[in-house]
Amino acid sequence: MKAESHRRTFLKQGAVLGGGLWLLGQKAQTSRAADNEKDPPGGLASTANETLKTIGRLRTIHGNFLDKPLPESAPQTILKASFRAANASNMQSYSIVVVKDRAKMKQVCTYQGSCMLLYCVDFNRLKDSAEHLGYSYFPDNIERFVTASVNAALAVQTAAIAARSLGIDYLITNGIHRGDMERVWELLGLPKTYCFPLIAMVLGYPTAEPAYLKGRLDGPGVIHYENYHRLTKEQIEEQVRQYDDPERHLALEEDWKARGYKHFMDWWFKDWLGASKPTERQTQMLRLLKRSGFVELEKA
Amino acid sequence: MKAESHRRTFLKQGAVLGGGLWLLGQKAQTSRAADNEKDPPGGLASTANETLKTIGRLRTIHGNFLDKPLPESAPQTILKASFRAANASNMQSYSIVVVKDRAKMKQVCTYQGSCMLLYCVDFNRLKDSAEHLGYSYFPDNIERFVTASVNAALAVQTAAIAARSLGIDYLITNGIHRGDMERVWELLGLPKTYCFPLIAMVLGYPTAEPAYLKGRLDGPGVIHYENYHRLTKEQIEEQVRQYDDPERHLALEEDWKARGYKHFMDWWFKDWLGASKPTERQTQMLRLLKRSGFVELEKA
Repeated sequence: MKAESHRRTFLKQGAVLGGGLWLLGQKAQTSRAADNEKDPPGGLASTANETLKTIGRLRTIHGNFLDKPLPESAPQTILKASFRAANASNMQSYSIVVVKDRAKMKQVCTYQGSCMLLYCVDFNRLKDSAEHLGYSYFPDNIERFVTASVNAALAVQTAAIAARSLGIDYLITNGIHRGDMERVWELLGLPKTYCFPLIAMVLGYPTAEPAYLKGRLDGPGVIHYENYHRLTKEQIEEQVRQYDDPERHLALEEDWKARGYKHFMDWWFKDWLGASKPTERQTQMLRLLKRSGFVELEKA
Repeated sequence: MKAESHRRTFLKQGAVLGGGLWLLGQKAQTSRAADNEKDPPGGLASTANETLKTIGRLRTIHGNFLDKPLPESAPQTILKASFRAANASNMQSYSIVVVKDRAKMKQVCTYQGSCMLLYCVDFNRLKDSAEHLGYSYFPDNIERFVTASVNAALAVQTAAIAARSLGIDYLITNGIHRGDMERVWELLGLPKTYCFPLIAMVLGYPTAEPAYLKGRLDGPGVIHYENYHRLTKEQIEEQVRQYDDPERHLALEEDWKARGYKHFMDWWFKDWLGASKPTERQTQMLRLLKRSGFVELEKA
């Protein structure tokens, strides 16, 4: 969900090395794209019904969307699908702000597509209803926030899969949490309390087809059977190798090799994730979660 | 995602009132069930491809699962599907504990099915890898937790939709957050820091087919166009009516009418949600989020 400024595929890197390799690269790209349709990484095709095929083709478009409208009925279809996700006590403790204004979309989440759906944790509808009926309701602790944010994210992913089934691409982004987050409240008129912008989904059509689907780790350290199993030294080394393997497409597309790193994970921990010391002060997010009323901090 | 001990449908209530109404109820139930298959609440059928049809049929089974194993390949297929969800920087900052031991499953999440997938926010794989390579990595603030929990929930919902496409039902439950949460760490051997059990999914086959799909609000107060719009008094009253309408299936299946409440929402705010005063002390969850290292609390 993070922007990558210099997106380079291994196939494109091949192009730098000469025409023959470039042609080979093109051929590999074509056959790999065809492979993706038949049996995407994750190997869902062998058992695949249409829904699993759609899931097997899920992908993120990193902000390179055409300036082209969606079919008129698409946002409603996607929203209706989104609501089918499970949610705690059928409270639907979320709000979805639909933004089609492209300039505003960019200010809110830093990306632009045909339409943006901003999913917020939101208890104002419930609280206002309670007060209208003469009751009090205080969704004022982190449990409410965590439950509601899971509910909202379940709805987001249902929307993503629905969109992909309609041939519409997406980017799910926490761009709303970068920069001054208060702009999101101001630009969209969000309530200052009991409402928190959680995640944005930009919908649209890509300017170019991605050359491949990103890979995923799917073994030890991610899946644990019956009990949690911490990675062994050997398993960590195997994981380092998997990130380095261009065929696995696990690595972010950065020029870590050109920068002299031995392993992708070296680049990752040194240049990308960057946190070599503990967090020194409260993050903007904690401050705003407190202001929103979701952290029962000062209580004994 | 909450257990309801006395699940009663309006159709079953009809049965109490006499045979004629019971027959009418049965007829309505049959035609409604058929309607659900054709055009589930949310009205996805008119545009429906197979994926949208699967989404339109999403439903929660509240713990009434048969003691019957899944097909051998199903958990792997569902997990592979789950990984196709987008995730920030491809960090996969989650762990999934797969539990088939039914006694343990019940202790962990209070429900039992054929298999449980416990999704945890988890940075230990990354932190251990960093340290193995000689780097430090501190995922020690609420931003990391929120981003990772969204990622994990996106993966959960992809698994849910994949399961449903395979004819397998599910319950997504925060039962892990009820009672003494520390049991979850103890029963599964979760790391004490940088790992937090977020949500559990129980998979299986229902003991009985649900009579209908739960409805959802899908208008003002949930969807906001371009800007947030707080509900008007009239819109709140309309929402109260929608919850009272048995055809909308929005209400939890409780005997709120028999208990003398005028509106479902009266029962909801008075008996169910219950919080008529502000949270008085730190919740267990905040304490455990702090212990897990995800809240940069004492920092200025």
